[in-house]
Amino acid sequence: MMELRIAADIVEAENQKHGEAHDADYAALGEHLSRRNIDIDVVAKKVSEFFVAVPSWGVGTGGTRFARFPGKGEPRGIFDKLDDCAVINQLTSATPNVSLHIPWDKEDPKALKAHASALGLGFDAMNSNTFSDAPDQPHSYKYGSLSHADAATRRQAVDHNIECIEIGTALGSKALTVWVGDGSNFPGQSNFTKSFERYLSGMAEIYKALPDDWRIFSEHKMYEPAFYSTVVQDWGTNYLIANTLGEKAFCLVDLGHHAPNTNIEMIVARLIQFGKLGGFHFNDSKYGDDDLDAGSIDPYRLFLVFNELVDADHRGVKGFHPAHMIDQSHNVTDPIESLISSANEIRRAYAQALLVDRMALDGFQQDNDALMASDTLKRAYRTDVEPILAEVRRRAGGAIDPVATYRASGYRAKVAAERPESKGGSGGII
Amino acid sequence: MMELRIAADIVEAENQKHGEAHDADYAALGEHLSRRNIDIDVVAKKVSEFFVAVPSWGVGTGGTRFARFPGKGEPRGIFDKLDDCAVINQLTSATPNVSLHIPWDKEDPKALKAHASALGLGFDAMNSNTFSDAPDQPHSYKYGSLSHADAATRRQAVDHNIECIEIGTALGSKALTVWVGDGSNFPGQSNFTKSFERYLSGMAEIYKALPDDWRIFSEHKMYEPAFYSTVVQDWGTNYLIANTLGEKAFCLVDLGHHAPNTNIEMIVARLIQFGKLGGFHFNDSKYGDDDLDAGSIDPYRLFLVFNELVDADHRGVKGFHPAHMIDQSHNVTDPIESLISSANEIRRAYAQALLVDRMALDGFQQDNDALMASDTLKRAYRTDVEPILAEVRRRAGGAIDPVATYRASGYRAKVAAERPESKGGSGGII
Amino acid sequence: MMELRIAADIVEAENQKHGEAHDADYAALGEHLSRRNIDIDVVAKKVSEFFVAVPSWGVGTGGTRFARFPGKGEPRGIFDKLDDCAVINQLTSATPNVSLHIPWDKEDPKALKAHASALGLGFDAMNSNTFSDAPDQPHSYKYGSLSHADAATRRQAVDHNIECIEIGTALGSKALTVWVGDGSNFPGQSNFTKSFERYLSGMAEIYKALPDDWRIFSEHKMYEPAFYSTVVQDWGTNYLIANTLGEKAFCLVDLGHHAPNTNIEMIVARLIQFGKLGGFHFNDSKYGDDDLDAGSIDPYRLFLVFNELVDADHRGVKGFHPAHMIDQSHNVTDPIESLISSANEIRRAYAQALLVDRMALDGFQQDNDALMASDTLKRAYRTDVEPILAEVRRRAGGAIDPVATYRASGYRAKVAAERPESKGGSGGII
Amino acid sequence: MMELRIAADIVEAENQKHGEAHDADYAALGEHLSRRNIDIDVVAKKVSEFFVAVPSWGVGTGGTRFARFPGKGEPRGIFDKLDDCAVINQLTSATPNVSLHIPWDKEDPKALKAHASALGLGFDAMNSNTFSDAPDQPHSYKYGSLSHADAATRRQAVDHNIECIEIGTALGSKALTVWVGDGSNFPGQSNFTKSFERYLSGMAEIYKALPDDWRIFSEHKMYEPAFYSTVVQDWGTNYLIANTLGEKAFCLVDLGHHAPNTNIEMIVARLIQFGKLGGFHFNDSKYGDDDLDAGSIDPYRLFLVFNELVDADHRGVKGFHPAHMIDQSHNVTDPIESLISSANEIRRAYAQALLVDRMALDGFQQDNDALMASDTLKRAYRTDVEPILAEVRRRAGGAIDPVATYRASGYRAKVAAERPESKGGSGGII
Repeated sequence: MMELRIAADIVEAENQKHGEAHDADYAALGEHLSRRNIDIDVVAKKVSEFFVAVPSWGVGTGGTRFARFPGKGEPRGIFDKLDDCAVINQLTSATPNVSLHIPWDKEDPKALKAHASALGLGFDAMNSNTFSDAPDQPHSYKYGSLSHADAATRRQAVDHNIECIEIGTALGSKALTVWVGDGSNFPGQSNFTKSFERYLSGMAEIYKALPDDWRIFSEHKMYEPAFYSTVVQDWGTNYLIANTLGEKAFCLVDLGHHAPNTNIEMIVARLIQFGKLGGFHFNDSKYGDDDLDAGSIDPYRLFLVFNELVDADHRGVKGFHPAHMIDQSHNVTDPIESLISSANEIRRAYAQALLVDRMALDGFQQDNDALMASDTLKRAYRTDVEPILAEVRRRAGGAIDPVATYRASGYRAKVAAERPESKGGSGGII
Repeated sequence: MMELRIAADIVEAENQKHGEAHDADYAALGEHLSRRNIDIDVVAKKVSEFFVAVPSWGVGTGGTRFARFPGKGEPRGIFDKLDDCAVINQLTSATPNVSLHIPWDKEDPKALKAHASALGLGFDAMNSNTFSDAPDQPHSYKYGSLSHADAATRRQAVDHNIECIEIGTALGSKALTVWVGDGSNFPGQSNFTKSFERYLSGMAEIYKALPDDWRIFSEHKMYEPAFYSTVVQDWGTNYLIANTLGEKAFCLVDLGHHAPNTNIEMIVARLIQFGKLGGFHFNDSKYGDDDLDAGSIDPYRLFLVFNELVDADHRGVKGFHPAHMIDQSHNVTDPIESLISSANEIRRAYAQALLVDRMALDGFQQDNDALMASDTLKRAYRTDVEPILAEVRRRAGGAIDPVATYRASGYRAKVAAERPESKGGSGGII
Repeated sequence: MMELRIAADIVEAENQKHGEAHDADYAALGEHLSRRNIDIDVVAKKVSEFFVAVPSWGVGTGGTRFARFPGKGEPRGIFDKLDDCAVINQLTSATPNVSLHIPWDKEDPKALKAHASALGLGFDAMNSNTFSDAPDQPHSYKYGSLSHADAATRRQAVDHNIECIEIGTALGSKALTVWVGDGSNFPGQSNFTKSFERYLSGMAEIYKALPDDWRIFSEHKMYEPAFYSTVVQDWGTNYLIANTLGEKAFCLVDLGHHAPNTNIEMIVARLIQFGKLGGFHFNDSKYGDDDLDAGSIDPYRLFLVFNELVDADHRGVKGFHPAHMIDQSHNVTDPIESLISSANEIRRAYAQALLVDRMALDGFQQDNDALMASDTLKRAYRTDVEPILAEVRRRAGGAIDPVATYRASGYRAKVAAERPESKGGSGGII
Repeated sequence: MMELRIAADIVEAENQKHGEAHDADYAALGEHLSRRNIDIDVVAKKVSEFFVAVPSWGVGTGGTRFARFPGKGEPRGIFDKLDDCAVINQLTSATPNVSLHIPWDKEDPKALKAHASALGLGFDAMNSNTFSDAPDQPHSYKYGSLSHADAATRRQAVDHNIECIEIGTALGSKALTVWVGDGSNFPGQSNFTKSFERYLSGMAEIYKALPDDWRIFSEHKMYEPAFYSTVVQDWGTNYLIANTLGEKAFCLVDLGHHAPNTNIEMIVARLIQFGKLGGFHFNDSKYGDDDLDAGSIDPYRLFLVFNELVDADHRGVKGFHPAHMIDQSHNVTDPIESLISSANEIRRAYAQALLVDRMALDGFQQDNDALMASDTLKRAYRTDVEPILAEVRRRAGGAIDPVATYRASGYRAKVAAERPESKGGSGGII
């Protein structure tokens, strides 16, 4: 029996409230889509099979280098975090897996697994941390980790990643995500080539420790925390890494880790074409790695990314199963609400991409009919698929309006009463 | 009797084809909106009163400095251009006014006015040109126009603008849009302060020539054709211009003229707040002043701009009547199709913005409920308002599916037979 | 008698080491400049009269939201910070004033003043903090400060700024710098217009509390910590603030607070022209508000900013006395070394700008001789003025090679022995 | 006997004028460098062996899509262009090779070779053109060339490139540079994957036609002329191309073809590390592909690129011989002067990079002494190496002050009398 963090009758009562309007909307959309020769239930079924992992760190309030302003009922540790993640999955039915971060979530694997199982949760990719120093860590990552000039520091970083694999193996995870902040703040501070050689050498050691059925994801980022150069700065470097390491190595695309104006969906297409797309860290951004809620700033961009994924399916790309994860910083919202909303937005983009008339699109592309090609995408995109998303949630035991249901449940007040207040204060600047 | 460039029965026949599905969509949307306490006909009426001007130069195929690839049936001059503009307005009912560009469109004003009237068209803001040299022009604008170091060149630029006002007065226009490409390609090439003083002095002379019921719009742009500095580079400088000149002077916002990542809707809000928003040049862009079709790249951004306009209406801002114009470069599409589509996209953003529940939004803003505030905008945005747009077109004699109707009409083939082929070749590079 | 934190004989010994080479370099440069009709001693004198303030927070190791990696001997409080600042000024003779940050540096003003005086230091602009919550603060700034929707929070922020003025008055400061992080992370979260109205109203109250001989500087920033919109987002808004408040209100330009590709020197010119340039926060950046060491990334840009300042002097702009401050985050260097180096780089840019042949430049600008105008700036810029900087330092009792001298002094090891180790750990993210 | 376009005695007379000051500067610099243990003559010799190719199209005045403002004496064709190139090489001794553009420079190869030889010039990489339509070309490149959906258009583009190889072979060139503008202006217009497959397939055919001792350079560019997506959009895609094609295929880096804020020198390092750096198109830029004069906007960035090249030499990278070419658009200067100046700036960056104390730098990097590592680069960079550049020019028969000498020669007036005036007018926009 799965433990429910929100009582089933609360969900039921809320669904009752919205049920009639929802039924009308779903029926109307079904009729509209049938006029476009689309079977709404086929779409709904596909959407119901799409999942995105939630990051354990995402259920805590995030911050900037200037400050962190905690909310009420902040999770005290990974067990609380799993509880919060279970709420998200209960209401959305879209997030059955949690992505852990070591050492932040380091606990007895058996206890972790038991707690997660009881909540109906599993474990997605493991995340290592070599961008900050854990207490009592012998070597500091101030000047890098896998690419550090000092061999002992590199060794420590390699060992930490191997430990993450071991923990993940115990938990049933099948992938390791490696993001390092290594880089430099001054021209000349590091030698680009030597740093990257050291990075590749360290990654090769980690790769050797990878079980046969695991994948390793390297993640690129243009800048931050390093502000002049970053060792894994873009998808070009990321591709070189995956290609150098071997067939279990793939590139992870975080939507916020690119240069201004970058055409991200094209990078996605390239990585698919060359067999190296590992998956995503979903979020949205306007300036840099803003880690805002998925779809909140440029929802059409998110749709265009999913358009590539559905197109790859449509073209029958072999062995293509990207990992979908959220990676956001919830600074001004209740993190549970943001993750509920973001999971929906991600499914929304997927549902919209499923509506694209690909046969027509192929024809317009072949004929250089740019306007109608664009219109074919826009027509799918502007379809309001919320009734499909809601229906999928309801059918899986989730909520038609999950944020309203969450609020109605009083979950946040309940945990706020149990969990002591968290400290805020300045961020990294002092 | 208005001359129709596309026979009414063609439009009628096409509308018949789409009529049934459209009626069903409109009815379903009406029911959905009524569940949200919105009267679809009230929205439709507002949309039907929203117009956007078409630029005369937009009906010709655009190009880049590398090449221009003309299409078939390119307009030979302003009379052909007006014919093309009439097609757009006939099918969309959204573009009754044309914005002229002098000297490109310089013809006998009486003849112009008669031709336009017969087509049911009027004239929007006049556009001067001091970014290229007209044949036989005594002084070159190679090194600037209104800000040129040489007084005679400045005089010529001032006189040209005054001539534009005179032509516009004869045509019934009520505004002059001034965009200059003045700037520099090298640090040191021009003195920022002296250049701007000269610009302001020239604009003051033009301002003096402005009839009482006219407005003058200055347009800023970050770069291009100047690549190191631009005299009117951003809205800050633009505001200083409008503020220095006087109460008939306003700032024009072209959506593509900003730095990467700029929050354009906030600039719109600031200019409204300080009484200086003159209007828009609508288009879309991904990199620079790409002049792509409105809403084709980032439709949510376009919505957010309209959200500010509707919010200003909602707040009852006095004397607020921004001028809406399209300014795009149609390099790979039939320009008529792009302008039809863009006019629709602009109305779409407006219609979506009308659906925002502003009472709820105010409450969420007051309560710092960021998630629900965002959701309130998204809920309006994701509503598929195409049935409203189509209904408004149909009611005004336009087309339910204007691009399909345009294609069915054979207009392009007809004018291609009449108008000689246009030359392409290299752009500005050689 | 001024207390020296580094023994005079250490400086002397180091200067001896470098003296001969320096003398030769200075003589050679003097001869070279005299061939260009420039008197090296006139330049040296002007440089010796140029100062830049050091921020108290800059002598601590900075960090990012991901981590802070402290160095050895981190200052424990403002008294230690003043000691560190004194070292910088002793070796560079360029930084006699310190800019304080309240509440971080809140101590008994008398004690502060006495400590500073003994070290030969004075106080520059005061900085308020409403971007993070101080312990026991009744109202949180999570959702803004001066622009907050809640009146009590705004009142608290106003009062805090007034307190900063009072403390500054006691210390002999003459300016208040106001930077707020207020903004939003989601479209819709805040109403741009209402937020800005509230901000202006709060600033007006602070302005009223300003002594007659004080100035108030508002600082704009494109983004961070808010990632969708920022209330004071650019110089356009900043100008509106200064213009609305009155003649004691000025705009502060932080070199890292602009959109990508922005021509910052042109903003400087515009603010000078309209009488509203208050001063600078110097630093360098490649991506966002990276807060890197001044001149480390794009030294020519720094020169071009100073070119505007020297040009304004050359044109005899009235009442022009911008405040020069450093604002950097020293994440991977000894902060004292970075500040020494940065003060030198700032003086370097000034010295280079003094070498511009402005008569020739005026002529080239008048003649549109872009190449020679550019070359005139480049010729000044590429002159290696280090001998002038070194000579100015030496004559004022500072070091020919200040970083080497600092290292030779053993200051860092000494304070590391006295000051307990500082904690690092994660930044704002958790 | 080489034909001189500028009489030797004019050069001689000008060199006399500047000789004394130059000798003093050179001597002083030599002494200064010897104090840094650098032999000035060793540096001078290396600089004298560094060459950069001039583009034939660069000696004509460039323009933008808005306008082209021609100068006096514009070259009428490739023979005039070679004359102009000869002037640049005569005065700088840095540009013995010219890079041709087909079909613009298509003439009888024998006549071309004879003309060039007489002027002491050779031929660098050939450039194909599939970004504009040549008159009477059967298939248009409006919707792409090598990636076009239509096979016949692709065939035409392949054949054109093969023809470029044939012409180049006749001329003694050893490389083909392929830049295509292929891309799209609308999401959906083209299928990213299929387009790139077609591109790769076309390039493979061209590659097969490559003589054994030739190299092929593919050039990436973020955007323009396509404004939504570009087939070869960044170095990641460019690497995939070179890697797919084979060992004669390399990536060309144009300094202006990157996303805002990109760390270009790091891309250079990566391509060197993976054996795929083919060479450069040098220029400078502030916003996009501005094609401004090399070193005019961010000279430190140019230095950092050369720092990577010299570092690669220092590390003894095998088979490393990148091709150096200028690619600029001279819109407001005499193109000959801009190319003279740019060749000097490029050599300047090289000379500065030669001065870096690499042993010290290695040590600072190993020790994570970021400040001193940065200072080591800055120390080299801020050395005014103009005396070395001038000396190298003089020793090779060039001019101490080449722009002044060019002006003194009256070359422009002479060719203006011979060559008819060129037309300006609008660029690509209409």
